[in-house]
Amino acid sequence: MMDYKAPLRDMRFLINEVLDYPAHYAALPNGAEATPDTVEAILEGAAVLCEQVLAPLNLSGDREGCRFENGEVTTPSGFKAAYQQFVEGGWQGLSFPEAYGGQGLPASISAFKSEMMGTANWSFAMYPGLSVGCINTIVQFGSVEQKAMYLPSLVSGEWTGTMCLTEPQCGTDLGQIQSKAEVDSDGTYRITGTKIFISAGEHDLTDNIIHVVLARVAGAPSGTRGISLFIVPKYLVSSDGAPGKRNAVTCGSIERKMGIRASATAVLNFDGATAFMIGAENKGLEAMFTFMNTARIGTAIQGVCHAEASFQRALQYASERRSMRALSGKKDPDFKADALIWHPDVRRMLLTQKAIAEGGRAMIYSVAKIADFLVNAVLDGDERKQKEQDSCLGFYTPILKGFLTEMGLEAANLGMQVYGGHGYIHEHGMEQIARDARISTLYEGTTGIQALDLLGRKVLLASKGKCVRDFTLTMVNFSKGRALRRDAIGMMARALLKRSVQWNVLTTRIMLRATKDREAVGSASVDYLMYSGFVMMAYFWALQADKASELLRTGKGRESDEFYRAKIQTAEFYFERLLPRAGAHYISATAPTSSVLGMDKAHFAFG
Amino acid sequence: MMDYKAPLRDMRFLINEVLDYPAHYAALPNGAEATPDTVEAILEGAAVLCEQVLAPLNLSGDREGCRFENGEVTTPSGFKAAYQQFVEGGWQGLSFPEAYGGQGLPASISAFKSEMMGTANWSFAMYPGLSVGCINTIVQFGSVEQKAMYLPSLVSGEWTGTMCLTEPQCGTDLGQIQSKAEVDSDGTYRITGTKIFISAGEHDLTDNIIHVVLARVAGAPSGTRGISLFIVPKYLVSSDGAPGKRNAVTCGSIERKMGIRASATAVLNFDGATAFMIGAENKGLEAMFTFMNTARIGTAIQGVCHAEASFQRALQYASERRSMRALSGKKDPDFKADALIWHPDVRRMLLTQKAIAEGGRAMIYSVAKIADFLVNAVLDGDERKQKEQDSCLGFYTPILKGFLTEMGLEAANLGMQVYGGHGYIHEHGMEQIARDARISTLYEGTTGIQALDLLGRKVLLASKGKCVRDFTLTMVNFSKGRALRRDAIGMMARALLKRSVQWNVLTTRIMLRATKDREAVGSASVDYLMYSGFVMMAYFWALQADKASELLRTGKGRESDEFYRAKIQTAEFYFERLLPRAGAHYISATAPTSSVLGMDKAHFAFG
Repeated sequence: MMDYKAPLRDMRFLINEVLDYPAHYAALPNGAEATPDTVEAILEGAAVLCEQVLAPLNLSGDREGCRFENGEVTTPSGFKAAYQQFVEGGWQGLSFPEAYGGQGLPASISAFKSEMMGTANWSFAMYPGLSVGCINTIVQFGSVEQKAMYLPSLVSGEWTGTMCLTEPQCGTDLGQIQSKAEVDSDGTYRITGTKIFISAGEHDLTDNIIHVVLARVAGAPSGTRGISLFIVPKYLVSSDGAPGKRNAVTCGSIERKMGIRASATAVLNFDGATAFMIGAENKGLEAMFTFMNTARIGTAIQGVCHAEASFQRALQYASERRSMRALSGKKDPDFKADALIWHPDVRRMLLTQKAIAEGGRAMIYSVAKIADFLVNAVLDGDERKQKEQDSCLGFYTPILKGFLTEMGLEAANLGMQVYGGHGYIHEHGMEQIARDARISTLYEGTTGIQALDLLGRKVLLASKGKCVRDFTLTMVNFSKGRALRRDAIGMMARALLKRSVQWNVLTTRIMLRATKDREAVGSASVDYLMYSGFVMMAYFWALQADKASELLRTGKGRESDEFYRAKIQTAEFYFERLLPRAGAHYISATAPTSSVLGMDKAHFAFG
Repeated sequence: MMDYKAPLRDMRFLINEVLDYPAHYAALPNGAEATPDTVEAILEGAAVLCEQVLAPLNLSGDREGCRFENGEVTTPSGFKAAYQQFVEGGWQGLSFPEAYGGQGLPASISAFKSEMMGTANWSFAMYPGLSVGCINTIVQFGSVEQKAMYLPSLVSGEWTGTMCLTEPQCGTDLGQIQSKAEVDSDGTYRITGTKIFISAGEHDLTDNIIHVVLARVAGAPSGTRGISLFIVPKYLVSSDGAPGKRNAVTCGSIERKMGIRASATAVLNFDGATAFMIGAENKGLEAMFTFMNTARIGTAIQGVCHAEASFQRALQYASERRSMRALSGKKDPDFKADALIWHPDVRRMLLTQKAIAEGGRAMIYSVAKIADFLVNAVLDGDERKQKEQDSCLGFYTPILKGFLTEMGLEAANLGMQVYGGHGYIHEHGMEQIARDARISTLYEGTTGIQALDLLGRKVLLASKGKCVRDFTLTMVNFSKGRALRRDAIGMMARALLKRSVQWNVLTTRIMLRATKDREAVGSASVDYLMYSGFVMMAYFWALQADKASELLRTGKGRESDEFYRAKIQTAEFYFERLLPRAGAHYISATAPTSSVLGMDKAHFAFG
């Protein structure tokens, strides 16, 4: 029941046919090793790990959860052995520099792997997943000594890392951080404070955990400009690289959560813990933001993961479970009732899931190319290029993170719906997917925060709408040669042309309103984000359908005709059944700001 | 944190001002006792029970869950004492006939009570809630002896009842039922079979449990026409009315569920259990459907309950928690950051919750009037009137059940979103609301089933669109005198006029298509249901806003001006921000059926 089958055929279609990764890698300085054969071997190897090792631990991991006792966290049965296999396979180091023991492959390859791991077992994937931010931070800002001391064990996966930002009084608003760092005579620091919601903050998978911590040096300016970044190892590392003395950072408890219950979410108490500053004093937040775009895309993947996981199981159930007769006549006359999949509304739900999973995958894989450029720029220390790529990625990030996690949650809920009452029962695993998916719109910046980032910062402030004009130009260029076609591609092209104009009109309307009304951005932002997501996904569906149509015509595709036809059909479904929602978001985004701001805050309820 | 405050002011506004229940009760044969003073006393008494007894057990009930051991179920701490208070208060009998120990008040009064109980603690409310179906069945179909034997203890609440329909192989498709009933020499039956998902199927709150069970008499026709209805008491009742010998119905296990964890969902094994037929042989399903409309409205209330519960807590949190500064400038300059409620997107979420809770309440309370007529017709044994009222109620039922539970789930999820990461943590109770709400779109007929019932049965088959024409005529009559007004009411009236036409056009389009394409209904149904829900709720918001506007003008209202202004503002929000979604559902409902049916069932995925 809890089987997971890596969607390799869809992945290959995107990697090789739609997005032409072979050409992308060939042009990338660190892409020479990423030959089609290597990529294929990695995909297949990761699929085996995910299907055979990680997926079987997903349901039991949720049922057992993590245990907390005397400051120590025990992960669910089987996690430790599975993590060992993960380390032995060298999976953590795939895209990290060879200088630190990694394989130096492009970052996108890790995204393919992460999608499979996250679909098989999101909670498990979080342990190595959190290391990525820690490693990236040390790679970019660490001293030569810090790199030598921490990176090899982190890159191999022998140790994991964390990012310690949130405190009880603040999550989004990091300017309110209170953790204090006092400098010692030897130049190290002593950190005191409490951090909460620290994923992988404590566990039994590795001998050491390296925390990257935001804190204020005594006397630092208040607010965001007085925050520095520190390395705080659980065990201080001796000169030979082995974990030594236990540091004064302890796990006070782990949270009882709705989902991702096999992932330990720790309260960490720093009681004068020895800390090493990383990067420049008081520049901690800026450093933290360097990899925020890539971290958020890492979370956007979660939308695809849960949509895919829920779709796979719902499809299987819909094919096997029988209920009622189809309104259009018996379909399985040899049985007492027809399989669920014959019922049109069940198909609507399955196709919605499929459209979200495969459409989201196309968005992620496309944007992963930009991440390749960005990561390389960081590794080269090329600041100009880094800014360029980061600003390019920055437009996609909030759309992917906000839209795909919202849609992933919808897909997960539809999967439960296909199961009927059985979807609500633990043993089928469908409700777990919905619970696990629920975190994705909350952490790494809520949907509301993504929306403000998109509309306020990326679209209006940073580019005055240029990023939308650029993206819609891509849509127009794709569509103009195809709009007169009398087939499905023509229909999609015409819809894209209409949405290209509309997206720019929407942006301009809000921009104009924002000059007169400072609430214009905040009261339109989430609808604007969802609008953008629906339109952007439409483009990526058209792209897939168009490639499928071309390969059907030329016969040069590697997949079967049925595969390509199903792609076109799913794209049509998307345009006819999901894209129309963009219209509703358009109307809401242009509604008067007074409809959200007119009410006095004392009048929301009358007790 | 887990406080619940009964929304008495909103309830009174609907009961006394918008829907004029005093006049409704005055005209009702059993309404004489339901004077405004009595109704007020009941509301206040129920509020005390819900706020002080039931709400404090909600979070702990979820954490503890029900325990199953040796065939027995232990409810969470405090449930037994609370249930005792419920029984002592005579709350179960409010609307049941005085002949059986009830108070004989109109059914709607129980709906007001049920809303409060369900909001305070849905899991608890399910124990007495499930009795209602059992009692109604015995009232309508029981013999004089059966009524005398079971009803007094059920009506007092000393016993509870269940409805045993679902079996492992079938839920919706009851024609597949396999449980067998064999007649004994004394005219009683022996039932053998397994029933699953039996809410309140086993528990420790009462001395006896009366199961109403669907089963097949040996030799009965196959399918739906061979199913009969039986009473199977947990303890056989002796002639003095006391529970006697243990019957052969045992609880095999209880389900591990996503939510409503304090409500025991039992697997019941009938091993030749002594059973008493109720109603006519092979007419069990028809009997079961008599009260289906009222039962489904009982579940529709759940949407309102979870929206209200989540809204109350989210509002409190948004007023207290501080994060960031408002984009339009500092709002709480004495603090480090502004309260969440100053941020427009947080307001959008709160207003969405409020619009769903109060709009849904208006829909339920309005339709509860029809339930009053229906229940009275049943009690009078007036079949013609009963059919008339049932068919009237039947149009509203799937809309209320389907639409309000979907929207209640959305509201519950928005409440988590207001809390940010804290929404995901058990102790705040927000994730519990979302988990509890999740069952509501699944049981008592999934949203998909409601949609088929609405579009296929109620709108097309039974009335050829007349029920839509009737309802939209009400909308038109309301709107036509108001459409020229230059205020908010005028805007709403014009929107309603437009939607009146559109709803009929949509219905006609699908009706025409259905004559040629038998998949037309199934592939449009859920979008049609959601469309209907959004438009119907718009009417009920306009009704509230109009009454508020009138009372503001005349000064004759019992509430404050602020209360009435907030009503109008919430209605405006609904029309500007939520109603536009109807447009997207319209487009999807009219999309070609090929977009869901074109794909071969083998091509949904390529492993």
